[in-house]
Amino acid sequence: MGGGPEVPSKDSDKKELVLCTLPWPEEGARKGIDGLKEEFKDFEVKYYHSEQGKKLDVPEDILARAKYFATLFWLPSSAKALPKTKLIQFFSAGTNHIAQHPIYTDSKIPLCSANGVHGPQIAEWVIMMDLVHSHNFPRLYDLQKEKKWAQKVGMGVSDRVGKRVGILGYGSIGRQVARVAKAMGMDVIAYTASPRKTPESKEDNGYIVPGTGDPNGEFPSAWYSGTAKEDVHEFLKQEIDLLVIAVPLTKTTTHFLSIPEFETLHKSNPRGTYVANIARGQVIDQPALVKALHDGLISGAALDVTDPEPLPADDPLWTAPNVLITPHVSGSTDVYAERAFEVLRENIRRERSGGKLVNEVDRGRGY
Amino acid sequence: MGGGPEVPSKDSDKKELVLCTLPWPEEGARKGIDGLKEEFKDFEVKYYHSEQGKKLDVPEDILARAKYFATLFWLPSSAKALPKTKLIQFFSAGTNHIAQHPIYTDSKIPLCSANGVHGPQIAEWVIMMDLVHSHNFPRLYDLQKEKKWAQKVGMGVSDRVGKRVGILGYGSIGRQVARVAKAMGMDVIAYTASPRKTPESKEDNGYIVPGTGDPNGEFPSAWYSGTAKEDVHEFLKQEIDLLVIAVPLTKTTTHFLSIPEFETLHKSNPRGTYVANIARGQVIDQPALVKALHDGLISGAALDVTDPEPLPADDPLWTAPNVLITPHVSGSTDVYAERAFEVLRENIRRERSGGKLVNEVDRGRGY
Repeated sequence: MGGGPEVPSKDSDKKELVLCTLPWPEEGARKGIDGLKEEFKDFEVKYYHSEQGKKLDVPEDILARAKYFATLFWLPSSAKALPKTKLIQFFSAGTNHIAQHPIYTDSKIPLCSANGVHGPQIAEWVIMMDLVHSHNFPRLYDLQKEKKWAQKVGMGVSDRVGKRVGILGYGSIGRQVARVAKAMGMDVIAYTASPRKTPESKEDNGYIVPGTGDPNGEFPSAWYSGTAKEDVHEFLKQEIDLLVIAVPLTKTTTHFLSIPEFETLHKSNPRGTYVANIARGQVIDQPALVKALHDGLISGAALDVTDPEPLPADDPLWTAPNVLITPHVSGSTDVYAERAFEVLRENIRRERSGGKLVNEVDRGRGY
Repeated sequence: MGGGPEVPSKDSDKKELVLCTLPWPEEGARKGIDGLKEEFKDFEVKYYHSEQGKKLDVPEDILARAKYFATLFWLPSSAKALPKTKLIQFFSAGTNHIAQHPIYTDSKIPLCSANGVHGPQIAEWVIMMDLVHSHNFPRLYDLQKEKKWAQKVGMGVSDRVGKRVGILGYGSIGRQVARVAKAMGMDVIAYTASPRKTPESKEDNGYIVPGTGDPNGEFPSAWYSGTAKEDVHEFLKQEIDLLVIAVPLTKTTTHFLSIPEFETLHKSNPRGTYVANIARGQVIDQPALVKALHDGLISGAALDVTDPEPLPADDPLWTAPNVLITPHVSGSTDVYAERAFEVLRENIRRERSGGKLVNEVDRGRGY
């Protein structure tokens, strides 16, 4: 390196401190921590295992020195404890769970979400379910258990080329579904609450796992928008083969899909729309869904979310025809921590270069 | 159209005749026939339902007039019966089944295969199986039957971003697997018998379902080739997460994968390679596969082909750990006839414009 020997700094105050209060034992976050230290060699990382429902004490001097702070839910009681903090990186997709906290309501410390880290695995879940349904996999799997070679069961598969996927809520998950669906030869149409008429408005400005998603909004062949019933119906009339529900749960989207919507889908596509819900159970009027499945208004449904959760054992949804249910697991991935640390790193880079943070929460808007 | 009234031709000899001897009742080929008639309005189509094992008589005058001829296996006894025929379009991926027929051995009528029509649906099968395995779907499906909400079973999913798919045999199926895998964020490496060092040699010159596949060979980050054991091992050493077997069955590829190959995979990727076979059962040394599954040399296997077929009920493969078996159905699709008619139409276009036919069989090489 030239210029004389490297002297290890004895004043740890001069090192920039990254504080982590995260829900994994430190080993579980090892790759993420290592990546951080490798990129920012002058950083010190203080890691605390923060378990839900358990009290955590972080020394005041550590809080006072923290320049960057990564957490899932733990926060000190007020922003006064964090005088040097340039940003708080949440490891969750949203920050609703701390929206009443003084740091949210009364401070100006930038808060960033980990929105985007769920895109790949949830999109995979959607694609898997659509294929499992269209290729008749459950029946083939049952036959394997009986050691039966029954070709007829696997015949007449409807492959995905030329089919249409309608994505209700074109965020990070919907965009990655679009990328994969497009690669399978499907047509993609998108629905958003607000209109996306300009190239800029079609862009995804949140965090995107590199190589995935639809950064420029190039995959949809058509965009639909609006929050009125007739706007939604206009979208549902587009002969959709796979409807992906990926809207946030709000007053407007509560029971967004009920009998009139299932009837609209059926009228437009009598072959039958397959409905995949990875948003929230309450977005669908669940008794109406059960009826739609029994009446054949849709060809089936894949649900990672239900109303309520856990779904009670006696709920009629469990045994409705052509329904596949998983217990709210589609967002799970063994690289969750690693990927959320990537968002933190991106934000540290941006903070240091004076750029706009990614996934910064608009406190007024709430996301 | 101007210039006087349209007079229907009374001389049907002047119409160009397309002869079809296909394994569906005419209704089952309706879309394909209609598409042909719509594009080539001056064509006459004569359709015969040709069932395997049943005698079919096609009048001599029809054969004598046939300019284009679409078939799966039926052929007249010699090329003399087809004096005007410009090409025979087979509706199968290969023509091995008629390689001893005089029209194959002693005539020069161009023979074309329907190679390429299986790409989308078989690629979907591969992607489905890889996701079903990595997302632990079979277990989740079993739990639904028990009406159990058990989140732990769906946790720790290994999503596909950054994983590597190795495609042994980079033909129309492998190329479409590559397109979808790439969209999911995977790295793709390809293996071919002969080296593909120039851009031209990387191209797919066969029929490609529009919007699918890898026409220019742009998806693989690396290409491997050779037919010697060490060549194959070099490829298998590349830390492969999903190995797709898509090579034709030849002397060289019989038992292409056996214990040494499974050991090589394991050494290179101790997390475990998932092996998908959509080629022929004999490409894998099946007892070796059963052992590899029991010994954990690979993480699992998805098999649409076995040795023999049907797989006998007492075969140990049925219950080997982490194996999923389907009864040779991955090539099935409800648009098979329609898609094969597209190949015929492409070839009629090319024949009429004097271009090179697509999928023309090299009688010397055998495909």
